[in-house]
Amino acid sequence: MKQYFKIDEWNIIEEGLHPEENRIYESVMSLGNGHMGIRGNFEEDYSGDTLQGTYIAGVYYPDKTKVGWWKNGYPEYFAKVLNATNFIGIKVLINGVNIDLAKIKVKDFSRILDMKNGYLLRSFTIVDSENRETKIEVKRFLSMSELEIAAISYSITPLNHDADISLIPYLDGDVSNEDSNYNEKFWLEVNRAVDNEQGLLTMKTKKLDFHVTCAMKYDIKENGNDITKEIELIDKEKYVGNKVSFTASKGKTYTLYKYISVTTNRDYDTENIESEAIKKVNNAYSKGFDVLLNEHISAWERIWKESDVVIEGDVKAQQGIRFNIFQLNQTYTGHDPRLNIGPKGFTGEKYGGSTYWDTEAFCFPFYLSTSDQNIARNLLIYRYNHLEKAKENARKLGLNGALYPMVTMNGEECHNEWEITFEEIHRNAAISYAIFNYVRYTDDKQYLLDYGFEVLVETSRFWADRVNYNPRKDKYMILGVTGPNEYENNVNNNWYTNTMAAWNLEYTLEVMEYIKNEHPARFEELKNKLKLQDEEIEKWKDIVNKMYYPYVESLGIFEQQDGYMDKELLNVSDIPKEELPINKHWSWDRILRSCFIKQADVIQGLYFLSDRFDLETKKRNFDFYEPKTVHESSLSPCIYSIIASEIGYEEKAYELYLRTARLDLDNYNKDTDDGLHITSMSGSWLAIVHGFAGMKIKDGMLSFSPFIPKAWNKYSFKIIFRGHLLKITVDKEIITIEQEEGNELTLKIYDKEYTIEANGKITLETNR
Amino acid sequence: MKQYFKIDEWNIIEEGLHPEENRIYESVMSLGNGHMGIRGNFEEDYSGDTLQGTYIAGVYYPDKTKVGWWKNGYPEYFAKVLNATNFIGIKVLINGVNIDLAKIKVKDFSRILDMKNGYLLRSFTIVDSENRETKIEVKRFLSMSELEIAAISYSITPLNHDADISLIPYLDGDVSNEDSNYNEKFWLEVNRAVDNEQGLLTMKTKKLDFHVTCAMKYDIKENGNDITKEIELIDKEKYVGNKVSFTASKGKTYTLYKYISVTTNRDYDTENIESEAIKKVNNAYSKGFDVLLNEHISAWERIWKESDVVIEGDVKAQQGIRFNIFQLNQTYTGHDPRLNIGPKGFTGEKYGGSTYWDTEAFCFPFYLSTSDQNIARNLLIYRYNHLEKAKENARKLGLNGALYPMVTMNGEECHNEWEITFEEIHRNAAISYAIFNYVRYTDDKQYLLDYGFEVLVETSRFWADRVNYNPRKDKYMILGVTGPNEYENNVNNNWYTNTMAAWNLEYTLEVMEYIKNEHPARFEELKNKLKLQDEEIEKWKDIVNKMYYPYVESLGIFEQQDGYMDKELLNVSDIPKEELPINKHWSWDRILRSCFIKQADVIQGLYFLSDRFDLETKKRNFDFYEPKTVHESSLSPCIYSIIASEIGYEEKAYELYLRTARLDLDNYNKDTDDGLHITSMSGSWLAIVHGFAGMKIKDGMLSFSPFIPKAWNKYSFKIIFRGHLLKITVDKEIITIEQEEGNELTLKIYDKEYTIEANGKITLETNR
Repeated sequence: MKQYFKIDEWNIIEEGLHPEENRIYESVMSLGNGHMGIRGNFEEDYSGDTLQGTYIAGVYYPDKTKVGWWKNGYPEYFAKVLNATNFIGIKVLINGVNIDLAKIKVKDFSRILDMKNGYLLRSFTIVDSENRETKIEVKRFLSMSELEIAAISYSITPLNHDADISLIPYLDGDVSNEDSNYNEKFWLEVNRAVDNEQGLLTMKTKKLDFHVTCAMKYDIKENGNDITKEIELIDKEKYVGNKVSFTASKGKTYTLYKYISVTTNRDYDTENIESEAIKKVNNAYSKGFDVLLNEHISAWERIWKESDVVIEGDVKAQQGIRFNIFQLNQTYTGHDPRLNIGPKGFTGEKYGGSTYWDTEAFCFPFYLSTSDQNIARNLLIYRYNHLEKAKENARKLGLNGALYPMVTMNGEECHNEWEITFEEIHRNAAISYAIFNYVRYTDDKQYLLDYGFEVLVETSRFWADRVNYNPRKDKYMILGVTGPNEYENNVNNNWYTNTMAAWNLEYTLEVMEYIKNEHPARFEELKNKLKLQDEEIEKWKDIVNKMYYPYVESLGIFEQQDGYMDKELLNVSDIPKEELPINKHWSWDRILRSCFIKQADVIQGLYFLSDRFDLETKKRNFDFYEPKTVHESSLSPCIYSIIASEIGYEEKAYELYLRTARLDLDNYNKDTDDGLHITSMSGSWLAIVHGFAGMKIKDGMLSFSPFIPKAWNKYSFKIIFRGHLLKITVDKEIITIEQEEGNELTLKIYDKEYTIEANGKITLETNR
Repeated sequence: MKQYFKIDEWNIIEEGLHPEENRIYESVMSLGNGHMGIRGNFEEDYSGDTLQGTYIAGVYYPDKTKVGWWKNGYPEYFAKVLNATNFIGIKVLINGVNIDLAKIKVKDFSRILDMKNGYLLRSFTIVDSENRETKIEVKRFLSMSELEIAAISYSITPLNHDADISLIPYLDGDVSNEDSNYNEKFWLEVNRAVDNEQGLLTMKTKKLDFHVTCAMKYDIKENGNDITKEIELIDKEKYVGNKVSFTASKGKTYTLYKYISVTTNRDYDTENIESEAIKKVNNAYSKGFDVLLNEHISAWERIWKESDVVIEGDVKAQQGIRFNIFQLNQTYTGHDPRLNIGPKGFTGEKYGGSTYWDTEAFCFPFYLSTSDQNIARNLLIYRYNHLEKAKENARKLGLNGALYPMVTMNGEECHNEWEITFEEIHRNAAISYAIFNYVRYTDDKQYLLDYGFEVLVETSRFWADRVNYNPRKDKYMILGVTGPNEYENNVNNNWYTNTMAAWNLEYTLEVMEYIKNEHPARFEELKNKLKLQDEEIEKWKDIVNKMYYPYVESLGIFEQQDGYMDKELLNVSDIPKEELPINKHWSWDRILRSCFIKQADVIQGLYFLSDRFDLETKKRNFDFYEPKTVHESSLSPCIYSIIASEIGYEEKAYELYLRTARLDLDNYNKDTDDGLHITSMSGSWLAIVHGFAGMKIKDGMLSFSPFIPKAWNKYSFKIIFRGHLLKITVDKEIITIEQEEGNELTLKIYDKEYTIEANGKITLETNR
């Protein structure tokens, strides 16, 4: 395994310039604050290989769907993640030479992502043909306290010479997407303005009329003092800049502070976004770089206080988990229920749309346990707000109820492979499961009354229409589906899908009983609003009672789908190493008819509905399916790891954990250059907290059942639970649970109840 | 049902101009001669809606494959049917006005396809603003005796005025495909030349370097006499023409004869195609129009003598079947084993590639029984010549042996939907079945020694590698396939596929035994060439013995595939009329999980392996599957019709026959504007000959078991069988079989043997 970064607990460090792998470093060094994000691009010009990327949350482009053979029901458009105005740019001329690290001699280059403080630091020294050396140090951040603000300090020190320096902070709206056809541009200029102190550029998307204003203000100081400078305005199509020229003295450091505000008509009326941008950037300018940075660092301090995981005895693991937590928090802050967690976050263009079932199935538990519960709630509200679109989507397929899209930005389906779009319908149950998960964790039953029940009813209606009754077997079946394991398409009775569909119906019935009994008036309202019929409720019950579950009697395991056992039953160890990953080496038909599993499928069901299955059942299924799983999805190993932890396969659990923990830092899948695997980053957190520490909710109580991997000396993590902030520490001998915030709390450890006082702690033996 | 054409036994007649439906008429009026083809376009300019189409057999364009998500194993290129130099063009100016039927007043317009004589006749009178009337009559044909020659006579008669007339016969290589992106052009000019008497234009394709030369020569006569004329040469990029101007006297008829030769470097060395073209066109010119036309008509006479079907009492049916026979003979003449039968023939651009399994499964029996046996043999040789490519194709999928492509031009796969390309593998058995069919019919066992066995072995190797042994059931299975019914994708154990795969292996073993016993020396040669191993032969036997066939015990029917009986079992009559065809109204997933069948699947197997199944079995399966079949492929009703005939469902057989008989003439599928459904045209012939007349080979003997549909008074057809030319006539009372060519022949009628003398005939009672 190649080591790209220096191992460090809090920092991601690139030492020396890596022109050939620049995109990998750019991806990993991405910054984001939920409102916007930028890859780890350079401020100055760079003619080497780079993927310039600036992304604004919720701003996308509806590209025309193009497929070989159109199928009825495909969406007409799919959402493209859109590269936006480059606002970090600073062109640098030293003694008339344009600084371009691909063309100039550079020494002592380093690029450091400081995860504790949330900024990117770059420093290097350039050496010109006359051996004149100039040191440059750049710090930038996207504010976590003022989400529309970015700031950069760009410091230049001519080490052994006096220099004529020009700096051009600019805004450049003339950007394109790498994945566009024929270099098509997606932005039109609306307005631009520039004067000696500031610049402003408003662009709008060619379709959907998203308007984005970037405003910038700058300052140049030498040791805190103003300097003599000449200013030239640069004002051309889609571009504004201020060329600031001055003479720099040997050994002195000159710092350009660039403040940027980014506003969109997603947040303000279109006619106000410029005035808002100006107000925000003026405010940032008044505060100054250091004040802004300190506010930003404080915000990160709070995040780390609530979500940090500490691992002792394994710095690589420590770095990996912190990187994942850092990126998840950069991608989604929960401040806006219209946003969600894209698979690449703000780190690349790949994958259209922002929302997959990844959110509910993999990311949701992380935010649920490490943030204010409103943040998880906003993720639920996001889907509630898309309920009408999900109903339209079901209607397009000729079905009742609501089918949530496989991929979406605004609630509409964005994907167009029939075997996924139309058939990977298990996603619907994940939406319902997140509601269940939220209510179980937070006890916020009000959510069910206000929003949750409607989603449960409409997803149930979908299932009730999508099943078919088989009179020959007196069972309900679900035909023609793709399960979580996408290496099977168009199968009948995928056990996971059938199980989760019946669970969805059952939970809807349970919630209905609760509302009916506890809130009869609200129930009547909801019944009327939803036009709930007694017959459909009877049908749901009938389906729950008569759902068909494929089962292999002789092995005592669930059958992944009808006919799975007819396959040639091999293990991954039977595949020659050079044929892995199979998706790069095998034809699609061979993958489909093989027994090999892309990602947790039956095992995903065992994880979600853990209470329903005993350890022996989990063990039998794990023993059968895990050796057949190639884990060619980044979402796979974490779920297997959690079940392995539960059934006592501690080494296996740790081995599987390692496969996700440093996926991007080690470029494990050889595609980090495209961007980071954001949605799977929660996987390593899940493997630790749900897996190693065995965290569950049992009888409404927080419950742990921890062990510690052999390779580690100690690990600890934070959990927010119903207003309590807990720190759980596990070492080889002792488990310690400390309450950092909150009143007395009763919880379970190894299935025994313990009570922790406010600010109290308990310790007991680690005995698994 | 709208009637587009006048009902006539031998002619397809359009009366009056139909600008809005011009493309439909153009498709139907297409001419072809196996070497080339043209849609029923006008010679003169036409600014109305038209699909200009000239196609040269075997000349295609490799377009880059574009799909949403690439799957390993997809072809990099797919073949596009290429529109070529427009060689029919004649620009007409009368008194300085360019004749364009979209812009000028026209009366008495008719366009007639004369199927007996194989030419297109157009006549009309134009009326100018000063009420000057000019009559035009155009006759054109693509010679069936000189395949590289086309000829046009273009006659003009100023009825009530003297006129200044200019005619410009031209060749125009500046053509494009309608389906190209951004009007991309696919041809480059290589050479052009024009003098007072002739013109020449050589174009080549941008890829693959197909060179095509068109040479033209012309003549203008008035009542057989030369006239005074002025000639102006037109010579511009990709275009040559002769502007011939003369003064025409009232009431006299002036005829331009345009002779065209079309040569390609598929047939000659590239450096010789121009000299060949010139030689050919000079020769045609010397013969003159009438001689050429007579030779052409004689060729058609022979075709009709061997393949005509006569229906009495139903002129619409008569016209329909003749149209189908006519178009099949225009598309494929068997003169070149590198050619095949494209789904649209020479009548449109739709569908890339020229060859589908349609050829072997549907067209082959037609050519086998209505042409010299070399023609059918050439269709087999076509596949033999692609054997190496088919082996490469199997290798791409990681499999042994040979997998013939789903769609091809040169042996390489042209299609890129995974569920078809990789999974619709039953096509392989159709290739073997055609060999069996040919040998059974012709008794030409030498073919097996020379070519057939190699194809049988390699297809068998494919099957042997593609099956998987299921130790739990001690059966071989074929997982992940698409059967002939493409409304099911990626199913396990499609009965048809399993049946035909086992049949393929069995036939290979049978042929092997024959060669081993009868031609031991040749067997040794073949064994060495093919590296035949005893173990693989044992494996084939084992697969034949242990193939798994899904079966529904309770109904005594074959199950279309595993799990079919788990579907909601409805009939087509349960679908609301407005939802038909379902492929236009239902989402793809709904189609897939429904029980509805696109085209004969189990029934196709009953047809191919008819001897193996008794009438009761056929009846049970027909009764179950037919009501579930939507026949949304033009290849479907004919096969059902044949089985219906066999099991005595005479009315049903006739009803199903009607669904294919006039598919294009009545524009039944609303897509005749794209071109004709060439490959399904054999379906109505099959329904009559294999169905109504019950023709089979039994114990090496030709066998009939005829009935006559109620709506008909009499029908007759011709059959070529092992050097015999037979005419079979069936009326309400009597069956007559006349031998027109050949010696004494013993055949079976209603399972009793009869012998016919040379030039003899037998008659017996129609008693079914």
